Amino acid sequence: MTIEQVSANRSHGGIQSVHTHHSTATGTPMTFSVFVPDHAEGEKLPVLWYLSGLTCTHANVTEKGEFRAACAQHGIVFVCPDTSPRGDDVPDDEGYDFGKGAGFYVNATQAPWAANFRMRDYIEQELPALVAAHFPVDMARQGITGHSMGGHGALTIGLRNAGRFRSVSAFSPIVSPLNCPWGEKALGGYLGPDKAAWREYDACALIADGARVPDLLVDQGDADGFLADQLKTHLLEEACASAGQPATIRMQAGYDHSYYFISTFMADHVAWHAERLKA
Amino acid sequence: MTIEQVSANRSHGGIQSVHTHHSTATGTPMTFSVFVPDHAEGEKLPVLWYLSGLTCTHANVTEKGEFRAACAQHGIVFVCPDTSPRGDDVPDDEGYDFGKGAGFYVNATQAPWAANFRMRDYIEQELPALVAAHFPVDMARQGITGHSMGGHGALTIGLRNAGRFRSVSAFSPIVSPLNCPWGEKALGGYLGPDKAAWREYDACALIADGARVPDLLVDQGDADGFLADQLKTHLLEEACASAGQPATIRMQAGYDHSYYFISTFMADHVAWHAERLKA
Repeated sequence: MTIEQVSANRSHGGIQSVHTHHSTATGTPMTFSVFVPDHAEGEKLPVLWYLSGLTCTHANVTEKGEFRAACAQHGIVFVCPDTSPRGDDVPDDEGYDFGKGAGFYVNATQAPWAANFRMRDYIEQELPALVAAHFPVDMARQGITGHSMGGHGALTIGLRNAGRFRSVSAFSPIVSPLNCPWGEKALGGYLGPDKAAWREYDACALIADGARVPDLLVDQGDADGFLADQLKTHLLEEACASAGQPATIRMQAGYDHSYYFISTFMADHVAWHAERLKA
Repeated sequence: MTIEQVSANRSHGGIQSVHTHHSTATGTPMTFSVFVPDHAEGEKLPVLWYLSGLTCTHANVTEKGEFRAACAQHGIVFVCPDTSPRGDDVPDDEGYDFGKGAGFYVNATQAPWAANFRMRDYIEQELPALVAAHFPVDMARQGITGHSMGGHGALTIGLRNAGRFRSVSAFSPIVSPLNCPWGEKALGGYLGPDKAAWREYDACALIADGARVPDLLVDQGDADGFLADQLKTHLLEEACASAGQPATIRMQAGYDHSYYFISTFMADHVAWHAERLKA
């Protein structure tokens, strides 16, 4: 489990670094970023995972996410993985919404994707072990969040691993891949046509099937061009209401799907996670 | 004086927009960004100009600068111009430090640069008139800041126009183009070999020659790889001390030349300007 440091920059009273390593889950090199606030020697800090959306790498949120001031204030480590395996040998699709940059945080079962597109194992198993081994993190205090496809990732991974994550939030998540074109293309391609196999990758279906977390925080812009056809926030509101899953789902007037939206509410999310991780 | 809106995104309780227009100063299209916090109808807000560094456009600080939360809190409009004329017909140099992306905020006098490289007129005359005509700004309350080459721009424009700018600050500025390789190449190329013509584009020379502002705020990272050979912050400290120019010049331990540094101290600078612009 060796990692190579690509860069390290002092920022907001901490160190923002980028690392690469060979992933056994995906069979490829993978890149991720980590922000570590200054801390006492030997101290281990809570860790907040941020999963990114379609077309993104670790870099988008690292550069534009505006999380560092809040993480330094609350003493939270912030980890940003990539969204898919990369490399010339990795199969791809000509669309932006499938293949590279669009791993959907699943373990693919279909050819030619199954060999590399194992982002569920990567995020749930391999990367946490790597982060625990190399950074000053308290793995008993983990939270998870993400944006769009990464909001889907955060919700589904959080719901499936409620004992591990003390706090789960999302920005403009894809709440039900079973019920939107992005989800149908991606899960159909990675998992095949049997929709029973999709349910563990669908936040609404997981809640309907009994998965629970203590609470959820979701922010969604009402000027988001993907809201009506892809994100369908109301399906999550309905799933939570009908299952009794506590959730705070906020529609933010005038905000779109961009990092201009995410960065606006990032400090709120970091504070919300910090309250739960440091309780 | 027409402008075209390229984009507008709600962010941090305001609107972040990008605009293009034809510049009479440079003879080319020019692009700039503006952040306008929410405000009462008819209210005019103080305006803070941010000049960018070598290789940058308006986009770097707009995406990575982390200024919006502070500008919304203090009610400050934030304007980010480009760093040079652009286009296929504009002469260029193969170096990153001269020509496109490297206008140095001068009016060039030498061929082939003199026709387009009139960034002094653009920033001092044309763009302020355009911004005053199209945005809710109070031009009696202007501040100016910038980074590296743009820190040089902010200091020299601020010192030459002390009646116009109530507040002047800089991040890791080139404090004396007369005394560094970047300055010698750029001012030599744009203005010719007579160094007497360079003095109005050199913050230290302007101060030695009698220019004054009420005070200055400068932040500089001590791990900045350009500090020793190009930025030479100590020359500004010496110029201010020997001329009696009040200045707060802070060396920030461990910080480099990147936006990871700028974004860390941006809120401090916005607050410092706000205190002076709203006094």
